[in-house]
Amino acid sequence: MEKVNIAEKLSLFSEHWSPKIVGELNGQQVKLAKLKGEFVWHKHDHEDELFYVVEGTLTILFRDRTVTLHPHEFLIVPRGVEHKPVAEEEVSVMLFEPATTLNTGDAESELTKRTLEKL
Amino acid sequence: MEKVNIAEKLSLFSEHWSPKIVGELNGQQVKLAKLKGEFVWHKHDHEDELFYVVEGTLTILFRDRTVTLHPHEFLIVPRGVEHKPVAEEEVSVMLFEPATTLNTGDAESELTKRTLEKL
Repeated sequence: MEKVNIAEKLSLFSEHWSPKIVGELNGQQVKLAKLKGEFVWHKHDHEDELFYVVEGTLTILFRDRTVTLHPHEFLIVPRGVEHKPVAEEEVSVMLFEPATTLNTGDAESELTKRTLEKL
Repeated sequence: MEKVNIAEKLSLFSEHWSPKIVGELNGQQVKLAKLKGEFVWHKHDHEDELFYVVEGTLTILFRDRTVTLHPHEFLIVPRGVEHKPVAEEEVSVMLFEPATTLNTGDAESELTKRTLEKL
């Protein structure tokens, strides 16, 4: 049972679109990720996904709207809803989602990360 | 699907030890709470509980140790582990835990909140 300091964990990696596991509870995981550029359109058929912005600005595109998140704002994307995260400049995010969640959801590609590092 | 601004939600209430629900996903809830003073010793037999400090300092006492959390640090308290949150000065925290989690766990008292407000 160790406390987690978000800034310290973020200092340990620099790659984009590669979530790191920093906590696990009740079948869910807490992940940290750095994002920059455009991700792929995808959805998670069985998992709701929470995006919490730590630093920077994250835009999440939906088919019918766009949501922009600033530091210490979060959005829950319900299962089944197509979304595409975009970040003009690097953004650091914390994710809460089931341990079963695949980063690219139903849109597997070279961006898919099947095995995530634990920090 | 509305984004949540943590500071804005925190501005909506002032009472201590009364968690407010600000998000729900995958059977879990995201709660915000303001804490000041000493809570009761308790445990949750079936729920792991995440404490994330937004502002202020939170001390969590365990039977064999003490953990102090500063802003943007979190701790996951595993199910079954007795703990007692203490805050000398007011602290604002975000909680992530199953929707079934009762604030006082196995130590029901006048501090127990069975119905939580959604903000």
